[in-house]
Amino acid sequence: MPVQLRKTLCGQTALVLLFFVCSIILITIFEHCAFCFHFNIFTCYCFLQIFRIFMRINVRVLFMLLLLGLGIIFYIGASTSPIIVFVFSVCIVSFVLSTYLTKWVLSKDEGPPEMVQISDAIRDGAEGFFRTQYGTISKMAILLGLVVLSIYLFRSTTPQQESSGLGRLTTAFVTVASFLLGALCSGIAGYVGMWVSVRANVRVSSAARRSAREALQIAVRAGGFSALVVVGMAVIGIAILYSTFYVWLGVGSPGAMKVTDLPLLLVGYGFGASFVALFAQLGGGIFTKAADVGADLVGKVEQGIPEDDPRNPAVIADLVGDNVGDCAARGADLFESIAAEIISAMILGGTMVQRCKIEDPSGFILFPLVVHSFDLVISSVGIFSIRNTRDSGVIGTIEDPMSVLQKGYSMTIILAVITFGLCTRWMLYTDQAPSAWLNFALCGLVGIMMAYIFVWISKYYTDYKHEPVRNLALSNSTGHGTNIIAGISLGLESTALPVLVISISIISAFWLGQTSGLVDESGNPTGGLFGTAVATMGMLSTAAYVLTMDMFGPIADNAGGIVEMSQQPESVREITDVLDAVGNTTKATTKGFAIGSASLASFLLFSAYMDEISAFSQLPFNQVDIAIPEVFIGGLLGSMLIFLFSAWACSAVGRSAQEVVNEVRRQFIERPGIMYYKEKPDYVRCVSIVAAASLREMIKPGALAIISPVVVGLVFRVLGHYTGQPLLGAKVVAAMLMFATVSGILMALFLNTAGGAWDNAKKYIETGALGGKGSDCHKAAVTGDTVGDPFKDTAGPSIHVLIKMLATITLVMAPVFL
Amino acid sequence: MPVQLRKTLCGQTALVLLFFVCSIILITIFEHCAFCFHFNIFTCYCFLQIFRIFMRINVRVLFMLLLLGLGIIFYIGASTSPIIVFVFSVCIVSFVLSTYLTKWVLSKDEGPPEMVQISDAIRDGAEGFFRTQYGTISKMAILLGLVVLSIYLFRSTTPQQESSGLGRLTTAFVTVASFLLGALCSGIAGYVGMWVSVRANVRVSSAARRSAREALQIAVRAGGFSALVVVGMAVIGIAILYSTFYVWLGVGSPGAMKVTDLPLLLVGYGFGASFVALFAQLGGGIFTKAADVGADLVGKVEQGIPEDDPRNPAVIADLVGDNVGDCAARGADLFESIAAEIISAMILGGTMVQRCKIEDPSGFILFPLVVHSFDLVISSVGIFSIRNTRDSGVIGTIEDPMSVLQKGYSMTIILAVITFGLCTRWMLYTDQAPSAWLNFALCGLVGIMMAYIFVWISKYYTDYKHEPVRNLALSNSTGHGTNIIAGISLGLESTALPVLVISISIISAFWLGQTSGLVDESGNPTGGLFGTAVATMGMLSTAAYVLTMDMFGPIADNAGGIVEMSQQPESVREITDVLDAVGNTTKATTKGFAIGSASLASFLLFSAYMDEISAFSQLPFNQVDIAIPEVFIGGLLGSMLIFLFSAWACSAVGRSAQEVVNEVRRQFIERPGIMYYKEKPDYVRCVSIVAAASLREMIKPGALAIISPVVVGLVFRVLGHYTGQPLLGAKVVAAMLMFATVSGILMALFLNTAGGAWDNAKKYIETGALGGKGSDCHKAAVTGDTVGDPFKDTAGPSIHVLIKMLATITLVMAPVFL
Repeated sequence: MPVQLRKTLCGQTALVLLFFVCSIILITIFEHCAFCFHFNIFTCYCFLQIFRIFMRINVRVLFMLLLLGLGIIFYIGASTSPIIVFVFSVCIVSFVLSTYLTKWVLSKDEGPPEMVQISDAIRDGAEGFFRTQYGTISKMAILLGLVVLSIYLFRSTTPQQESSGLGRLTTAFVTVASFLLGALCSGIAGYVGMWVSVRANVRVSSAARRSAREALQIAVRAGGFSALVVVGMAVIGIAILYSTFYVWLGVGSPGAMKVTDLPLLLVGYGFGASFVALFAQLGGGIFTKAADVGADLVGKVEQGIPEDDPRNPAVIADLVGDNVGDCAARGADLFESIAAEIISAMILGGTMVQRCKIEDPSGFILFPLVVHSFDLVISSVGIFSIRNTRDSGVIGTIEDPMSVLQKGYSMTIILAVITFGLCTRWMLYTDQAPSAWLNFALCGLVGIMMAYIFVWISKYYTDYKHEPVRNLALSNSTGHGTNIIAGISLGLESTALPVLVISISIISAFWLGQTSGLVDESGNPTGGLFGTAVATMGMLSTAAYVLTMDMFGPIADNAGGIVEMSQQPESVREITDVLDAVGNTTKATTKGFAIGSASLASFLLFSAYMDEISAFSQLPFNQVDIAIPEVFIGGLLGSMLIFLFSAWACSAVGRSAQEVVNEVRRQFIERPGIMYYKEKPDYVRCVSIVAAASLREMIKPGALAIISPVVVGLVFRVLGHYTGQPLLGAKVVAAMLMFATVSGILMALFLNTAGGAWDNAKKYIETGALGGKGSDCHKAAVTGDTVGDPFKDTAGPSIHVLIKMLATITLVMAPVFL
Repeated sequence: MPVQLRKTLCGQTALVLLFFVCSIILITIFEHCAFCFHFNIFTCYCFLQIFRIFMRINVRVLFMLLLLGLGIIFYIGASTSPIIVFVFSVCIVSFVLSTYLTKWVLSKDEGPPEMVQISDAIRDGAEGFFRTQYGTISKMAILLGLVVLSIYLFRSTTPQQESSGLGRLTTAFVTVASFLLGALCSGIAGYVGMWVSVRANVRVSSAARRSAREALQIAVRAGGFSALVVVGMAVIGIAILYSTFYVWLGVGSPGAMKVTDLPLLLVGYGFGASFVALFAQLGGGIFTKAADVGADLVGKVEQGIPEDDPRNPAVIADLVGDNVGDCAARGADLFESIAAEIISAMILGGTMVQRCKIEDPSGFILFPLVVHSFDLVISSVGIFSIRNTRDSGVIGTIEDPMSVLQKGYSMTIILAVITFGLCTRWMLYTDQAPSAWLNFALCGLVGIMMAYIFVWISKYYTDYKHEPVRNLALSNSTGHGTNIIAGISLGLESTALPVLVISISIISAFWLGQTSGLVDESGNPTGGLFGTAVATMGMLSTAAYVLTMDMFGPIADNAGGIVEMSQQPESVREITDVLDAVGNTTKATTKGFAIGSASLASFLLFSAYMDEISAFSQLPFNQVDIAIPEVFIGGLLGSMLIFLFSAWACSAVGRSAQEVVNEVRRQFIERPGIMYYKEKPDYVRCVSIVAAASLREMIKPGALAIISPVVVGLVFRVLGHYTGQPLLGAKVVAAMLMFATVSGILMALFLNTAGGAWDNAKKYIETGALGGKGSDCHKAAVTGDTVGDPFKDTAGPSIHVLIKMLATITLVMAPVFL
């Protein structure tokens, strides 16, 4: 038996390593050789043909096909559970709603031709980059899918699976299919985010000529459209997968798979989503900040021309960056947050139901889907609450847009509290513990409060209305150096409060869950982890509205750029400036929200990981003991991974920006007429340079994130095998995951807050404080802003995704570590 | 029984909290009110009187007293073990040797009166600050001693202790006495480091007028003096304590305490040492960098005068800072590293011996003392190998000082390998496992190699001969911002290799120990942890030589300052410049060494902590399971502690520098003659401003480090009590400790490397690269250097101490968490 084990072990290890090596070689070839250039074109051509075929089909036929699809979906849903039907209905209604929102946005005028021209340039740049980027990502996804397939073909199935007739082949294909579907949906989510923002920006600019309120409304509705699509797709995707597997595998019928084991089959979906999100965020983040830093360094610092000045050759690249870096990437990020969180909560719900022997498990398992369905409803109410008021015709009589958005947010939060309470009563009521639902409702309240406090804390540290940023601005008076020291201290310090909030939330949610009255066979309370899961859902129960606020930022930023570039009058610029400033704040607060939810979700994900390991290995695995040297080393490596990843993400921006600087300097030297508006700068060249650089630079940190947990797990598995420690690989990976999560939370908080604070300290000085624009203070502040750019828009948000990607990759790769 | 338990619990908790509150109030009062000013003076007066009484005693009488003391010590030593006599002898010989070194250094001439004048000003400033700083620290130490006393009076004694007649009172006084002795010795270690450096600096300057080699030799021997004293005192202090307790408690006689339990009584010594080291490093680090940054910001950046120019009012404060920040603080730091490491290795040795039932335990327990005795011997050889060559009379014909120091280091390392091997054969040979000593010798080799690799890695990342710093220098060509981004990426990236080295070292040392053949009663291998302990000792087996190289840096730096200020000819300045540059590199490499040893030592310390907890609680405690939410939260809080501590340390420098800037600006405005050498700046005022600021600023981060583990432990102990989880407080603190260690290692590596790299990138540009001094590139590089200052000399080194302080405080406070 041990010989056989060793053989399997060696074979499997060799195979996985082989696949990794092959993938890396293939990716390298894909990137560099001429053949692959043709291959790239060929792929694009195929996609285009399929798209064209769809486009050529008669609208009625398409409509019929759609109806047929819907019918099938509803049929499958109805065969699974009425709850699924409810979820489907809400998602479809929200899609209809989002179609209405797009129509409304697109019906607005695009303004004068000079605006349209700029907007077209931005759109072309963004769509071009998106196509290349997602081309690369999709190739990597397919390769990774093959690796996963091979791993699952060699894995050992669990006895439960075997007894339910679920062989290796089925599991393998199910996992890979979920992975690819997750990746596809994540890609669509990103695309939708970008699609609407490149169309809304010019309409917001145009509206700003008429009314501030209208401009605000367009930006919010455009953001709302992609938010509803992103959240809706995450929910419906999982619901479809769940019900398809349910029907296909005959779950529930005697001898077949148990419904509580079903969620484990969905992990591939989460992994696919986070895989795409990681590269989307990395590539987009590097793109946007390389262009921004490069444009600023030559434009603002060397030539002294304002931001978004049409004379700057990198300005279009900068505006393109907002769309691909903020809209597309954040869409993919939130999509995978929600997907990963739903799946892990379903797994935990399933485990708990099994332990407590609850008769009707569907309530606990499907709870996350229902919560997010309600999220769609209440966020729509929030989005629609921001409407055109009567004074729409008059420029200038504008309410503070921040307070308008805040009002909508408060309304959404109140609705969230109410619906969450109803939801828990509906779904989580069980006769075994009649008051459990109340405890879980309180857990949800903990999550909602945590979201609110997190948003408040990030506002406190990054808004110049408060002490910290004012002090930071003051430190500019003694130069660049003291500004950087003060900013870094501020960022490091800002980690303290959120960590305390996370700590209190996790512990209180855990104890509310633990005391809910749900007990296992031997009478031990078991609801603790599910309590934290419910808190996470509470936190994410306003996700669609928060995403709307977030999407609003880059759209407003872009609109400002278009107004500046098309040289509109000062009054228009003022309106977009106000919207832009609000967008900056909402962007910063959303990051707080994202990291808060990531920290809660990751705690669930590694519980799910432990459940999965013990299901596969048939060994108890409920401890991660860091007093074992190897496990401790795993933790050390996990934390180091975060540091190294941040280093590579930041230096990628630095290197790419260097290329932009050189190109812009070259253009200014070779075409001296640019400065006098006599020659037009070559925008396209800048865009393509940034695009090429960011695609090249995203590979290294991305590959690090994916390969290192697998390598660590494999190495320690082999080590454990030879030193007689069962499950060593799995344990070391668990420690790696937990330490990486902790360090990741802290690092992301540090990077986001420091970056945001520097940005706003600069903005504060630009309002005229401490000498205003052009003073020495302002120069120092610009340095701070430049440093903060890769912090807050590349490395920081990538770490959010990284944390969850690590959790999902370990879930999917679990069999390798055994 | 539970009622009684609860009563004790509440009483103890209340008492501890009360004491903390009282201490904070008392410290605040001490710092601020007029009464305490008098109290301060009174304390100083008392010390002075005692000192005078000693001074007035006839030299012969003193000599007789010394001989008598030695006689007693040797008698006690002889009653304990011949090994102790050996240790005593080596230490005393090394003290004699260090007396010779001082005499030799002091016999050198002090140069012309203008040098003496400057040197006197530096000495007065340094000694004045030292007195005030250590006055504050000693008051805090006494208060903390009272807190520890009260805790130990309320603690429950272990059954073993009770059976050996060791009551609460004895344990309490023993612990507090060790604590105070450790604090005192650490203070002396710091004082010695500063004492010699303020005397050697002027002699090095003076010698630089004659010969480079002589200057190098003086600096090395002065460093060697304090290194021998620091290491010797750490060893002899522990040896005296050990043998005193041994004789006093009648260890070994039937019914009395077992020798394997004895090392647990010494933990107070390590805590005292690390307590003082933390504040010494914080206060000194803030002092030196506030003065440096302040002087540079106005002098270099605003007024454009060179570094160390006599016109700069803050220049004396800057030079004072080198002595109190680098010499005194690093002395205390290394002292506590060695002390903590010896004690934890003794505890682990004791535990292992007990488990394996080895007949003669003294070899395993006293092994660390012997290793460090040999360290004294071989480092002396290394120090004396650097001697005056024949060409001493000729200026300019100078070998590269770095290669001279390196040669000495290589010789020391070779000797270390040989003596370590002999040592293991002598001390660790046991009939139960005849080849175990060989395994442990290999563990030692792992440690020595790790030290060598660590030094190499830090050189690679901070020396401008290598790629990373060159690239960093290049990033200055695009401005301040890109330089900071590149520096931060470099720092973050530089954590990867050291972590891999630590991982491999810990695992290989652990497995060498595990396979040594030492087994416990049930046949399980038990030597693993002791293997890592031996590796740590291997790493520290050249500590005295490394400390010599480190001390060399600030002395050379100071000498350069004196040469510049006394306006010596260019040729002299050139020599001190070369020495200064070498000093910078050795300082950076020592930091790598310090963090490497800290990371290994802390792994021992938390094993010792777990042993102690299970000894006290009589419950098995060999797991720290981070899958328990509370324990995970403890880890999160631990990592956060490091971030917050770094933030406060950096911002303390920023704030204090701000005060210096304002003062220097004021002086330049009020005394315009300064710039034309017509008026003398008020150096003393700058010194006293920096001193006051750094004393004020060191309290906050220091208090955070001491209070937070205790508070966390208490809170979770109470939580655990009410939720029925025994040992929860202790477990949470263990996780906090481990996560803080991991984050601390990474953060310290990041801060040290980034700071060092920026410094050397600036130096590289100053050699004429990329435009040289005065270019835009150079300005950007100065910004980087300013940012790096608090990183590498305040926050970074303080984290080394913090890591070990956390470990020792948890060891001492362990009873509170139960």
